Amino acid sequence: MNACDPIFLPKGFKFSAVAAGIKASGKPDLALISAGSQTTAAALFTTNCVVAAPVEVGRTSLASSRGRIRAVLVNSGNANCATGKAGIRDCKSVCAQTARLLKIRASEVFPSSTGIIGVPLPADKINARLPPLLANAGASVGHLRCFADAILTTDTRPKLASVPLRSGSACITGIAKGSGMIHPQLATMLVYVLSDVAATSPELQSALRAACAESFNTISVDGDTSTNDTVLLLASGESGVALSKVKKEFQAALSEVCRSLAGQIVSDGEGVQHVIRLHVEAAKTRSEALQVARAIATSMLVKTAWAGADPNWGRILAAAGRSGVALNPGKVSILIGDQTVCKGAVVCRFDEAKAHEHLCQTECSVRVRLGRGKASVEFLTTDLTSEYVRINADYST
Amino acid sequence: MNACDPIFLPKGFKFSAVAAGIKASGKPDLALISAGSQTTAAALFTTNCVVAAPVEVGRTSLASSRGRIRAVLVNSGNANCATGKAGIRDCKSVCAQTARLLKIRASEVFPSSTGIIGVPLPADKINARLPPLLANAGASVGHLRCFADAILTTDTRPKLASVPLRSGSACITGIAKGSGMIHPQLATMLVYVLSDVAATSPELQSALRAACAESFNTISVDGDTSTNDTVLLLASGESGVALSKVKKEFQAALSEVCRSLAGQIVSDGEGVQHVIRLHVEAAKTRSEALQVARAIATSMLVKTAWAGADPNWGRILAAAGRSGVALNPGKVSILIGDQTVCKGAVVCRFDEAKAHEHLCQTECSVRVRLGRGKASVEFLTTDLTSEYVRINADYST
Repeated sequence: MNACDPIFLPKGFKFSAVAAGIKASGKPDLALISAGSQTTAAALFTTNCVVAAPVEVGRTSLASSRGRIRAVLVNSGNANCATGKAGIRDCKSVCAQTARLLKIRASEVFPSSTGIIGVPLPADKINARLPPLLANAGASVGHLRCFADAILTTDTRPKLASVPLRSGSACITGIAKGSGMIHPQLATMLVYVLSDVAATSPELQSALRAACAESFNTISVDGDTSTNDTVLLLASGESGVALSKVKKEFQAALSEVCRSLAGQIVSDGEGVQHVIRLHVEAAKTRSEALQVARAIATSMLVKTAWAGADPNWGRILAAAGRSGVALNPGKVSILIGDQTVCKGAVVCRFDEAKAHEHLCQTECSVRVRLGRGKASVEFLTTDLTSEYVRINADYST
Repeated sequence: MNACDPIFLPKGFKFSAVAAGIKASGKPDLALISAGSQTTAAALFTTNCVVAAPVEVGRTSLASSRGRIRAVLVNSGNANCATGKAGIRDCKSVCAQTARLLKIRASEVFPSSTGIIGVPLPADKINARLPPLLANAGASVGHLRCFADAILTTDTRPKLASVPLRSGSACITGIAKGSGMIHPQLATMLVYVLSDVAATSPELQSALRAACAESFNTISVDGDTSTNDTVLLLASGESGVALSKVKKEFQAALSEVCRSLAGQIVSDGEGVQHVIRLHVEAAKTRSEALQVARAIATSMLVKTAWAGADPNWGRILAAAGRSGVALNPGKVSILIGDQTVCKGAVVCRFDEAKAHEHLCQTECSVRVRLGRGKASVEFLTTDLTSEYVRINADYST
C-alpha cells in the first residue's frame, strides 16, 4: 500500500517495539502485539522439514491454548533456527517471561524470530528488555508502524495493508516482513493479520488457508523456502461484528490484504529491479499451472534475462519444458506485455524494442499459455540481479 | 585435462572445422567428425520437453540407421531450437548435403547445434561450406583440437579427456562444450566420446547410460536443463579390440572420460569462481541423495554464499529441508572441508576462519550427511556470482 493509504486500526490490539541489541546496527529488533482476552487465532507455517524453534513452540502453543493468543513476541536479527534444544528452551523462556509480566498463560504468547540461522537466541537480552517493551505499548497508527519497522531484516521498507469491513465498523490490517528466502510454501516471511471481527479459530483457519493459496503461495523471490515462514491471523472480536455474518466480505478483504502484502514482499525482494506478474494459462489444473510457474520463476537464466529487460522467450520456454509437466511445445504460446513473441514454440514476428521497453518497467507482465486446458494461475516473481548476489555473497557468518 | 596431458587418437575418425559465418565473430562454427564404415553409436539426449531440431532429427536417424553413424555435423552460434518445421527441414537439408558429398545415407549423419534459440538455421551458408569442411578433414591431434574449438560458444576453453585401453592398443577420447553463449540463451552441453573398440550399439548404449549417471547427470551450473543437450558415443572398431573382451576396463575408462569432461564443464561454467564438490551421504537411496544434492546445488542463497566463501551452513540445511525428502533435522550433519560445522541440525564449535579459507579455494568440498541410510552421491556444482548475472543479463535478443 502507499504510505498515504489509510490504515484502519482493528480494535483490541496494542503495539510496541524496542532495541534489544540483537541487531548489530542497534535498530529496534524486539516487537510486541498484545491482544484482548477474547482474541482467537489461526496460523500457517513453513513446509520446510527444518523448522525454527519459534515455529515449533508457536504451533504447540496454538494447539494447547486452543487457538487463543494474547500476545505476539517477535525478534529480528536472529532466526533461532538450527539451535537445537537450547533454541527451544530460549524461545520458551522469553514466552514465559512475557506471560508473567502480562499475567497470561505462556501458551497464549506466540513467538516469531527472523534473521541469521544457527546462532543462539540471546534470551537474557530479550528478557531484560521486556518491561520497557510492555510499558511502551499503544494502539495508535504510530505504534503499529513501530512494530512493522522492528520486524524487518534486509527489507528496505515496512509492508502494511488495510481494508475496512461493513463501512468501517470492523477491519482487517496486515503487517509483513520478507525480502530474501522467499518461496513460501507455507526468508523469512512473517505475516501478522489482525481483525476485530469475532470468530472461532477454525473459522479463521479456513479463511486464512484460502487467502494464502492465492497470495503467499504464489510468490517467489529466490526459490528458497524459509525455515521460519509464519502467517498468523488474529481476531479480537472487539468490533462486535461476527465473521459468520460477513463471511464473504471477510474472505474477500482478507484475500485483498494478503495479496497486497505478498506483492509488497516481492517488490521489496533482495536486489529486485523488476517485478514480473507471470500468468500461466490454459493448463489442465491449477496445480500444474503452479508447477510451470515455479519452474519459470526460479530459473536463474530466466531471472537474469529479466534483469537485463531481455525479451528472451527461449529461456522461458526451456524452463517450462523442464518443469515436469508433459507439455506439447507445439501448443505453447508466450506473451510479453500484450505482444505474442512465440506461438507453437516458434518465434513470432514481434517488435523487440517494444518488448524490451515493456520489460524495463518496474512491473511487467509475462503470459505463458500451455494449450492443455482451462486452469490458470497468477504468480508474482522477480528478476535476479547483481545486487541480489552482492547482498547474499557478503561473508557474514 | 591439462593442455600437456597426452591425447590418444582413436583409430577410424577424422576431424575438421571451418568458419561458415554463423557466429558474428567470424570464428570457426562448423565442425565435422567423419567415421569409418563399421562405426556404431549410442546417444543420450536432453530430458527437456522442448527439444531442438537436431535432437529430434538425431534421435530419428539413430533409430533408422540402427545405431550406425558415419559423420557428426556440429554448428555453433545457432541452437536451431524453437524454429518449428523450418528448423527440422533446415537440419535435414544440411544432413542430406553432407551425406551426398560423403556418399553415405542421410540417416548416418548425426547433427548437433548450439547457440541462440529461436533464430532460423542458415542452412544455405552451411551447405555452401561443406565442401571445404570435408576437404580439410584429418586424423591428427591438431585436427581434433580444431573440432574441439569450433563447437565452443561462451566457453573459455576446449574440453578434452583421453584414456588408453589395453596399454594403448585402443582408447577412449571425449570432446565436450558447455558454459553459456556469446548471445547467451542456454548453456548447451554437447559431448562426443570416441573409441576404436568394436561394439554393438546396445553395448555402447548401456555403457554410456552408466557413465552418464555418475558424470553429466550429477553436475549443475544453474539448474536449467538445455533444449539441446546431447552425449554421443561412437566406436569405430578399428583397433580390433572388442568391447565385450574389455568390458570392465572400457566402462571404467568411459566413466573416467565422462567425469573429467563433466568437471571441465563445471569449472568453465559462466562466471564461476568456486567449484563445489558436494557429497550427500547416509541417504536411504541414491535417488534421494541426488534430490537433496540438486536442491542444495540450485539454491540461489547457497550459491551466493559460496560466491562469498561464506561458511553459511544454515542455508545448506534450509535447502536440504525443502528438497522434498522427509529429513529428520536431528540426524543431519554438515561438513565444510574436514570440519563438522553442524551436527543434528545444530551448530558445532568450528574454526570459521579455516572454513572461510577452505571455501576460498578454486575447488571446495561440502559434505551433507542425512543419517537415513547408506546411499550417497557426489555432485559437482558452482557458486553464483555477479559475473554470471552480468553474462546472462545483457540485453541480447
